[in-house]
Amino acid sequence: MSSVFGENVKFSIFGQSHSEGIGVVIDGLPAGEHLDMQAIAAFMARRAPGRNPGDTPRREADGARVLSGLAEGVTCGAPLCAMIENTDARPKDYEALRHVPRPGHADFPLAVKHRGHQDIRGGGHSSGRLTAPLCFAGAVCLQILERRGVTVSAKIAKMGDVADAMQRGDSVGGVIECVAEGLPAGLGAPMFGGVENRLAAALFGIPAVRGVEFGSGFSAASLLGSENNDEYFVKGGQIRTRTNHHGGVLGGLTTGMPLVLRVAIKPTPSIALPQKSVDLRSLEEVDLTIDGRHDACIVPRAVPVVEAVTACVLLDLLMEGRL
Amino acid sequence: MSSVFGENVKFSIFGQSHSEGIGVVIDGLPAGEHLDMQAIAAFMARRAPGRNPGDTPRREADGARVLSGLAEGVTCGAPLCAMIENTDARPKDYEALRHVPRPGHADFPLAVKHRGHQDIRGGGHSSGRLTAPLCFAGAVCLQILERRGVTVSAKIAKMGDVADAMQRGDSVGGVIECVAEGLPAGLGAPMFGGVENRLAAALFGIPAVRGVEFGSGFSAASLLGSENNDEYFVKGGQIRTRTNHHGGVLGGLTTGMPLVLRVAIKPTPSIALPQKSVDLRSLEEVDLTIDGRHDACIVPRAVPVVEAVTACVLLDLLMEGRL
Amino acid sequence: MSSVFGENVKFSIFGQSHSEGIGVVIDGLPAGEHLDMQAIAAFMARRAPGRNPGDTPRREADGARVLSGLAEGVTCGAPLCAMIENTDARPKDYEALRHVPRPGHADFPLAVKHRGHQDIRGGGHSSGRLTAPLCFAGAVCLQILERRGVTVSAKIAKMGDVADAMQRGDSVGGVIECVAEGLPAGLGAPMFGGVENRLAAALFGIPAVRGVEFGSGFSAASLLGSENNDEYFVKGGQIRTRTNHHGGVLGGLTTGMPLVLRVAIKPTPSIALPQKSVDLRSLEEVDLTIDGRHDACIVPRAVPVVEAVTACVLLDLLMEGRL
Amino acid sequence: MSSVFGENVKFSIFGQSHSEGIGVVIDGLPAGEHLDMQAIAAFMARRAPGRNPGDTPRREADGARVLSGLAEGVTCGAPLCAMIENTDARPKDYEALRHVPRPGHADFPLAVKHRGHQDIRGGGHSSGRLTAPLCFAGAVCLQILERRGVTVSAKIAKMGDVADAMQRGDSVGGVIECVAEGLPAGLGAPMFGGVENRLAAALFGIPAVRGVEFGSGFSAASLLGSENNDEYFVKGGQIRTRTNHHGGVLGGLTTGMPLVLRVAIKPTPSIALPQKSVDLRSLEEVDLTIDGRHDACIVPRAVPVVEAVTACVLLDLLMEGRL
Repeated sequence: MSSVFGENVKFSIFGQSHSEGIGVVIDGLPAGEHLDMQAIAAFMARRAPGRNPGDTPRREADGARVLSGLAEGVTCGAPLCAMIENTDARPKDYEALRHVPRPGHADFPLAVKHRGHQDIRGGGHSSGRLTAPLCFAGAVCLQILERRGVTVSAKIAKMGDVADAMQRGDSVGGVIECVAEGLPAGLGAPMFGGVENRLAAALFGIPAVRGVEFGSGFSAASLLGSENNDEYFVKGGQIRTRTNHHGGVLGGLTTGMPLVLRVAIKPTPSIALPQKSVDLRSLEEVDLTIDGRHDACIVPRAVPVVEAVTACVLLDLLMEGRL
Repeated sequence: MSSVFGENVKFSIFGQSHSEGIGVVIDGLPAGEHLDMQAIAAFMARRAPGRNPGDTPRREADGARVLSGLAEGVTCGAPLCAMIENTDARPKDYEALRHVPRPGHADFPLAVKHRGHQDIRGGGHSSGRLTAPLCFAGAVCLQILERRGVTVSAKIAKMGDVADAMQRGDSVGGVIECVAEGLPAGLGAPMFGGVENRLAAALFGIPAVRGVEFGSGFSAASLLGSENNDEYFVKGGQIRTRTNHHGGVLGGLTTGMPLVLRVAIKPTPSIALPQKSVDLRSLEEVDLTIDGRHDACIVPRAVPVVEAVTACVLLDLLMEGRL
Repeated sequence: MSSVFGENVKFSIFGQSHSEGIGVVIDGLPAGEHLDMQAIAAFMARRAPGRNPGDTPRREADGARVLSGLAEGVTCGAPLCAMIENTDARPKDYEALRHVPRPGHADFPLAVKHRGHQDIRGGGHSSGRLTAPLCFAGAVCLQILERRGVTVSAKIAKMGDVADAMQRGDSVGGVIECVAEGLPAGLGAPMFGGVENRLAAALFGIPAVRGVEFGSGFSAASLLGSENNDEYFVKGGQIRTRTNHHGGVLGGLTTGMPLVLRVAIKPTPSIALPQKSVDLRSLEEVDLTIDGRHDACIVPRAVPVVEAVTACVLLDLLMEGRL
Repeated sequence: MSSVFGENVKFSIFGQSHSEGIGVVIDGLPAGEHLDMQAIAAFMARRAPGRNPGDTPRREADGARVLSGLAEGVTCGAPLCAMIENTDARPKDYEALRHVPRPGHADFPLAVKHRGHQDIRGGGHSSGRLTAPLCFAGAVCLQILERRGVTVSAKIAKMGDVADAMQRGDSVGGVIECVAEGLPAGLGAPMFGGVENRLAAALFGIPAVRGVEFGSGFSAASLLGSENNDEYFVKGGQIRTRTNHHGGVLGGLTTGMPLVLRVAIKPTPSIALPQKSVDLRSLEEVDLTIDGRHDACIVPRAVPVVEAVTACVLLDLLMEGRL
């Protein structure tokens, strides 16, 4: 199954880069939550292209229309559906790519899986465009989380030289770090339904994510236990750790310390430089040049997406089953 | 939910470090599969302690007893349950830890979540001991995968200096790389139910895993698109890539190239050195010395566990719904 | 979780009786399936009001707009979203009911669950109006099933006297029988994931369904084993049963005989006759008269809905995980 | 998927009629719950054969051994596994049935599904024997529910003439009614995740169940709306209904009135009378006589099983996700 995630709150994403519309259905939100639509629009604007050097020149209106889930301005317990019309679609750009998979994209395995019936226009359902409804969902969850004292904030921890890449016709990647504060201790579970498991499963749903780590992450592999362990102490009547190498999560459960995670974003696979590929009909090798409109670096635009996905999972975790 | 994973094949892990027994129920295996019990025992022996310097001195018989799921030596379509008796249990070692959480372990958040009712003996359900039934499950899946031409093999990619750590009373971590070969292209799905999502969700269920990456992973963040993209060519009538920075998986789907993933293992949190903690009753800070028997490095023993979990997820993926 | 069902194909229903739109997202459909939009419209028209005596006078255009999931007229493997605008909405009818739950409706428990924030207009998400997107989904599945030789057909097995009920200002119920032919033997599973379990779980999602039975159903309770058992014989090289008391399903699995199920539909709870209820604010008993537009009998309109839900579940079952 | 059910609490049933052991893993129980093992044994004894005329002469010890999930006598938050050894197994009885499916059993579709590899001994995983671990699970849940003021009690509503059937070598069925009291109003959800949906899905997992209905059920089809609707009134400050045709559940949600459901149990398919069947190898019709030990009526033994399954689902519902 591809496009539904969540246990207590289920998020169902639909749409393709050039379908009539894209959107999300959120099932299981608590009732009685006011949604600040201006704040949602402002959050979504952070993801929209055209704000950073290196963004695609494609312009999106991205006005999300709420079809259901509200009554008198607050959530009513019914599934919330938000839909975004695809207006600035120029599908002709992609016809040349029908039988020639782009390196670094999912074109080839999708063609195999769907026996040639996948939507080739702009990456179809695998397009970064689908992070717009994710951001809508995240903005909703962020508002609900904030009322419970939980905040989520991401930033760029590392990024390649975009200006240089644009000049070369190339692209760069980076690392995004996300921190959530205000979570209670004891959320989650050991083994497969824990905080790390569910966050990682959702975060790998963001296009171009190639790695996810918590706390000291891969660098923990180079530390001694005495360096990586975080000793407990008491501060203001609360049990805290002096350091936070564990990133607020131990063995699947939150500790009450700030949750810290990082995701690796690969360089945008669509580059202006010519590349080698294969024609899937003739199996002949061909030279491929990608036209269309693309980002030389999606890292800045992915920052709110990482916040959004993190917020969705944390709200789902906060609502976990209990007596 | 904590201890069940899988969609088409469901794996349900039970047991605590010092409960009467531990085990796994595997629901959804194909029928008619012969299980080589000697090969399963040999695989499980790779995880058992006592083979590497730095392993815990605890000895486990680990003979798994199959309670159900077989008829005349082959799988019969019913859930397969394997049970391992806990014989060499010395629970008295742990009484001193009842109210003093060990740094780097899940003791503290578990005490909060379960209001003091968690099993404190040897880490309870969060113990590395629970990777024994995971290895049983993985060994079963590996045999079924191998009959379909899929092999899974992990190795240590990086590890700290165990001898030095043991001498200091400290511990070290490392990185394990796992490669699966023979997978068909087109397995998986975009977004949340893809290969990376499901592997990551399961791999973070292995105690001490702090990061998961695919292909070039976090290092992709430092590459140019032209460096990280893998160009297609044809070899023996098959579409392949010349390089494999994508690690055999693009946008949630397998490409037919070797699947390559890496997991970061933190240094064992149980160390002989004294540490600071807090008494959960009095909220007073205390000095903690951990006795018991522990591994100075679990990386070598985690290698077959990574193979096992990868195999479980890949079999589940291979059985995905289709017409 | 309320409004998502399915394992290999997931159906996510959204909307309220008087929200801006209602619809469905279908995730997991096979790619390459042509959808006959005229046949879908014709199927949906069978559910639309105004065709039978006793139907509500509300008129619906019910034109479903496909927002995603198609490329060049065939399914492309991405989630299929269909949206229906709510145009003929007259929400003022319902204001009087805000604090007075209607007998036989879910008003009272919804008010408790959502602490008064439920959408009271026309039953909100619990309205029979939500069976329109269910019918869209069913019509899609029926087309895909028919290409595999599976047909689904329901009819009224029993119904009260509608004309008499309308005259009295009352309502009547009935029983709908549904038969699916062409299913292969061996589909499903024992215990909780079988054919009966999954069909029943989905069929109880249709408003007003109070009972579900398979084959001889409740009447089996009055039969002898020798009467209820169906003996096997061979016809045209196929193993068949001479009788079909088992309704094509034994212990969770299809036998290849026609699948036969029946659902009990209660009389429409909205009646013109005055009823007693309670004001949820004052806890005073009040006389309630329901205006609005209602069906005196929904049984005829529920016939295609039963077909639709059955088709959705059968397609999901046909796609079950296998190697 | 066959043998796992539940959302917040997951129940995983394993075993075959003549495998080494049978049992259940319960994941997600609240921690800190004392289990009264004598009460569990007494509950399981109600299901054990040998108490009613018409029961199988097979004797079972049925002592359940708890392998995990407890610490110091209370639940510890880890999965609870209970295992029952199969001691009085006489598998030789069944060899004659290997290629000749018994009418009314799942033998034939299981042989198709598992290509002949299903466990033919005593019905394998489809055996009524598997209701023993279900009763263990139910007994655990009943204790936890009772501490929250919820009781569950089933009784025979209708049953055939067992004495007559035994004399004829035949079998009889019946109807079981189950009532749960003390549930709060507002539990559940509309559409597919509601009380009826989840109870029905689980109850059809009990062998021989052919129908499930709530409240007035199938008889509602013969009532007028004014007869079937339950009017609200106030009693002791609580909103109640004067009648309970809705059986305590409306549109997927509990109303606070007693939950009333009924299940139809077909006559035991194993009868002493000779029957016609087909040899699956030769496709020749054959005369079949079933030896072995069987129940002429399982209705009395199914009463605690219906209570058990109802209790499992209600506990799962009580733990539903919330903020």
